[in-house]
Amino acid sequence: MVGIIMGSSSDLSVMQDAIDICQSFGVAYEVDIVSAHRTPVKMLQYAQTAKERGVKVIIAGAGGAAHLPGMVASATILPVIGVPVKSSNSIDGWDSVLSILQMPNGVPVATVALNASKNAGILAIQMLAIADEALAHKLETYKQELVEKVAEMSQQTKSNWK
Amino acid sequence: MVGIIMGSSSDLSVMQDAIDICQSFGVAYEVDIVSAHRTPVKMLQYAQTAKERGVKVIIAGAGGAAHLPGMVASATILPVIGVPVKSSNSIDGWDSVLSILQMPNGVPVATVALNASKNAGILAIQMLAIADEALAHKLETYKQELVEKVAEMSQQTKSNWK
Amino acid sequence: MVGIIMGSSSDLSVMQDAIDICQSFGVAYEVDIVSAHRTPVKMLQYAQTAKERGVKVIIAGAGGAAHLPGMVASATILPVIGVPVKSSNSIDGWDSVLSILQMPNGVPVATVALNASKNAGILAIQMLAIADEALAHKLETYKQELVEKVAEMSQQTKSNWK
Amino acid sequence: MVGIIMGSSSDLSVMQDAIDICQSFGVAYEVDIVSAHRTPVKMLQYAQTAKERGVKVIIAGAGGAAHLPGMVASATILPVIGVPVKSSNSIDGWDSVLSILQMPNGVPVATVALNASKNAGILAIQMLAIADEALAHKLETYKQELVEKVAEMSQQTKSNWK
Amino acid sequence: MVGIIMGSSSDLSVMQDAIDICQSFGVAYEVDIVSAHRTPVKMLQYAQTAKERGVKVIIAGAGGAAHLPGMVASATILPVIGVPVKSSNSIDGWDSVLSILQMPNGVPVATVALNASKNAGILAIQMLAIADEALAHKLETYKQELVEKVAEMSQQTKSNWK
Amino acid sequence: MVGIIMGSSSDLSVMQDAIDICQSFGVAYEVDIVSAHRTPVKMLQYAQTAKERGVKVIIAGAGGAAHLPGMVASATILPVIGVPVKSSNSIDGWDSVLSILQMPNGVPVATVALNASKNAGILAIQMLAIADEALAHKLETYKQELVEKVAEMSQQTKSNWK
Amino acid sequence: MVGIIMGSSSDLSVMQDAIDICQSFGVAYEVDIVSAHRTPVKMLQYAQTAKERGVKVIIAGAGGAAHLPGMVASATILPVIGVPVKSSNSIDGWDSVLSILQMPNGVPVATVALNASKNAGILAIQMLAIADEALAHKLETYKQELVEKVAEMSQQTKSNWK
Amino acid sequence: MVGIIMGSSSDLSVMQDAIDICQSFGVAYEVDIVSAHRTPVKMLQYAQTAKERGVKVIIAGAGGAAHLPGMVASATILPVIGVPVKSSNSIDGWDSVLSILQMPNGVPVATVALNASKNAGILAIQMLAIADEALAHKLETYKQELVEKVAEMSQQTKSNWK
Repeated sequence: MVGIIMGSSSDLSVMQDAIDICQSFGVAYEVDIVSAHRTPVKMLQYAQTAKERGVKVIIAGAGGAAHLPGMVASATILPVIGVPVKSSNSIDGWDSVLSILQMPNGVPVATVALNASKNAGILAIQMLAIADEALAHKLETYKQELVEKVAEMSQQTKSNWK
Repeated sequence: MVGIIMGSSSDLSVMQDAIDICQSFGVAYEVDIVSAHRTPVKMLQYAQTAKERGVKVIIAGAGGAAHLPGMVASATILPVIGVPVKSSNSIDGWDSVLSILQMPNGVPVATVALNASKNAGILAIQMLAIADEALAHKLETYKQELVEKVAEMSQQTKSNWK
Repeated sequence: MVGIIMGSSSDLSVMQDAIDICQSFGVAYEVDIVSAHRTPVKMLQYAQTAKERGVKVIIAGAGGAAHLPGMVASATILPVIGVPVKSSNSIDGWDSVLSILQMPNGVPVATVALNASKNAGILAIQMLAIADEALAHKLETYKQELVEKVAEMSQQTKSNWK
Repeated sequence: MVGIIMGSSSDLSVMQDAIDICQSFGVAYEVDIVSAHRTPVKMLQYAQTAKERGVKVIIAGAGGAAHLPGMVASATILPVIGVPVKSSNSIDGWDSVLSILQMPNGVPVATVALNASKNAGILAIQMLAIADEALAHKLETYKQELVEKVAEMSQQTKSNWK
Repeated sequence: MVGIIMGSSSDLSVMQDAIDICQSFGVAYEVDIVSAHRTPVKMLQYAQTAKERGVKVIIAGAGGAAHLPGMVASATILPVIGVPVKSSNSIDGWDSVLSILQMPNGVPVATVALNASKNAGILAIQMLAIADEALAHKLETYKQELVEKVAEMSQQTKSNWK
Repeated sequence: MVGIIMGSSSDLSVMQDAIDICQSFGVAYEVDIVSAHRTPVKMLQYAQTAKERGVKVIIAGAGGAAHLPGMVASATILPVIGVPVKSSNSIDGWDSVLSILQMPNGVPVATVALNASKNAGILAIQMLAIADEALAHKLETYKQELVEKVAEMSQQTKSNWK
Repeated sequence: MVGIIMGSSSDLSVMQDAIDICQSFGVAYEVDIVSAHRTPVKMLQYAQTAKERGVKVIIAGAGGAAHLPGMVASATILPVIGVPVKSSNSIDGWDSVLSILQMPNGVPVATVALNASKNAGILAIQMLAIADEALAHKLETYKQELVEKVAEMSQQTKSNWK
Repeated sequence: MVGIIMGSSSDLSVMQDAIDICQSFGVAYEVDIVSAHRTPVKMLQYAQTAKERGVKVIIAGAGGAAHLPGMVASATILPVIGVPVKSSNSIDGWDSVLSILQMPNGVPVATVALNASKNAGILAIQMLAIADEALAHKLETYKQELVEKVAEMSQQTKSNWK
């Protein structure tokens, strides 16, 4: 199961892509609102109990001084994927990116691009696929579809410029 | 009492100035190593029990993805002063500054300049002096000394350039 | 009393949140337009007389080369909270943030996030609550409300994704 | 097996930490020099054949316009961890960080902090531990050691400031 | 012939200017969608076969972690001109610019300004004109037209402000 | 006479404020379109002949790789005021600011804030007022008006918050 | 007379170049230490009385949250030249530059490059030379010397590479 | 012939690599000191006469507000390669990079990485090789040598970690 959390329901529009990826790959997930700064106790509990609840990877999205991914990582041995969200008073997203990326030695967060919850979803699938050949096969198919989409765009573009 | 914490004893060289300010103003303080990422449980306990232990202001120094000040602020109603420390693999200090400064609504951190633990100390004294006239008087004296130091420098500079 | 000042009435839309916090916590406040660059003499007078007028904390908002918080801090021993305002020709807010944050040793400004006048208000309340248990109690309640709001969002989100 | 690659042997001093982590956790690894820009064909072959060679996670370190992690990710379904290396003519590390982090939808790279190959190693172990309880147990022990190291520092610091 | 490629057909609106320049200078060109991250094999093939297909200069546009120009340059001796595209989740364009510009020694990319595919087109013409005097003559005419356009603007402005 | 130049008539909307200031202070001015990159010869001639034409200060506005102010300064001993214009494909204005500000030793440009052509106009008046007491008197009046405008805003704000 | 001020005698090493320029052009100057943050009252007095003391241009150097140039400009109609000084805990000089450059409408500061007090000196001379032909002539000579120095370097370089 | 110019002989240590590349590829070159800001007239003459002197590509290195590459490009139809030099008071190299890269439409500069004069040299060779098969062949050989160097490093690294 993939645990997908974020600090506020206003982050759902960005985090939806991670949920969609889990659905399209047929991987179980749970979604919750967990705030590092407003609900620190719940946040630690979430992290401490995630593994025993069956969570295998955690995806955490947050903006501004984005502490959720790093703090969850502090209290679990599960891999944590951090999604920097460009929130309204963000300084161009730099705050979210650096708050999530620059973790100290010992407590990593697997950071993806600004607002890139889709890639967070795919990365979670890739981690699960390490020990799940059926899932690995689906990833091969997904990668092949990327190739085909570009081929279509290429075809259309070339015919336009002939 | 002022609580002065930092994530690692390697931050002591930067945080020493805050300790010195407390000493020179005759204000009690405690110093401890508390890491948001390595000791999240202790960190929350520190924050949750600070007020009842007699701490009135907390100064927290951290570098990189600096979550300590903000996380301590999440679990106490005491004012928390954050000192962004320019650590070795910091991206020019931007990571420390933004991780501490850009806190979400509801949970402020009083951020001071990069490595400016001296100003963190003075700010703590200023907060305590709101309800402590003797301390306020010492601050007036301190401010006067700043004026005099500049006057001395001015004197010497003018005589050099006469 | 909390003194809330800003450089222009155009900053009121950002600074309103600080006023609202004072009102909701039942703390007296005064609001004024004081410009460091257009009314330097009035600005120094404001700072020099604030304490005797009964002001205990000053909140100053400013944008661009934002000198108001730092200059007010230069002329009072009261704690000064600086709110970096993202003004129209700001360079992404960096100018406001750095002009307020990077104060020299001896004269701190308690800086909050870009446009975060709400947090400036809360921080002022926290400072006053150091010596005011009734206010401290209100802060505990406020913190509890933050927890409850997240619980509500959590409840709703979970039911959506069941 | 963890595949650890970098663009030049000059990156070894930074990447050594990832190797050490693998060793200390008793996880097999291979180390190679693979350059996206100088050996693009070998690079693609490395990525395409990694899974069949038994590699389960790839750690790729690179500096400047750091294309190695993202390009390897383009040609494998294995999770790829990117380590931004601060190279000599880097623009403060921003180039390495952004070139690795800001991957387009469909092809994620799990980015860690600047020069943080130690965290890359731990993250790789965390991924492998999803399906390896013995490894998960070692991670729990590792996390406990972090707590103890802070406790030691705390003890020493407190006795200094008594 | 000038080869004009980009990672997605969504980049066509930016890259159109390069196509227009080729047309207005009467220089042959080909347009294709080639993605470094989704179609790495096709991308290398494109680069490896470009010279034998008659391509003399390649213009590659890409955004975010923009690897296309640098990777194409890795597999051809033709000069490659990189156009940093400011894509939707870009961090203000910095990611595109640095990912294209900061190439390691041995594999240059001729980088132009953010979104400046027009200048990429002109630069390609300038390279071809090194050995093509007719084309050089057209460039002289083009440069003269720039002078005349400014003269017109100057004339009109002066008459407005008389 | 103040010489006001810019690289394109599209900069007029930003540069208008400088013109207005000259008008309101009754100072003669000339306006022209001069492009460093499209009309380098005219640009040098403009600079070389400005003093003999009676120009005493030059205001030059430019965006992106903004070379106009610095290049004009290279060919005249008149003080040159540079206005960084935030143009359409600018990287947040940083390019304009740094291209104008960071002049090498020997050839200064008096740089004002992003898009701040109004301040460029005032600065030009200040320079002329060094040797023109009537103009100096007008500046005193202008400064007094700034004070009064703030006083009005202050009055209105205070009455709102009474 | 040129007024040269700085916030601390530690800035003298940077500001020395401005003094040297005044000396070599035979222009009178005064040097003083005036701190916006430590001596705000003296600072305003300095600015308010500068004109009557015979000062015609003010050069002010400051680092970090560099308020000295802007605050002096707030209290005088004399042109103020700001020198951003890269101080020890500066965030790469960005704080000094933005604090001085981004002044609000109505109160300009003529900003020069980071640490460029030499250019501040030359700019002051240029302003004085508007109404002083002898000084203007010296500037022509100075400009000619720059040409000759490059000619010498050119000669030597060419002979090296023959 | 390749024209290699720079603003000061102090840039020679950075620009040497471009010279070495020309030598090792057996391509004629000329080296000169040409300053946009100190010798604008000579600079324009250099650019205007370069083509008739037999120059086919110009490499221009400059730091700070680096106007040399762009201004040379304004006065010639030859392709101009710009090398941003990280000079002593540079703001981390950002000024050099942005001043060279962000050229307006109509006047491109082929920008390479910070201090990357080696890549400027290779890019110049690539441009000349468009119409010179012997040179193209040398580039193929050079590219092959890059592959071999990595192979050697790979061999050695693998044997170390066996």
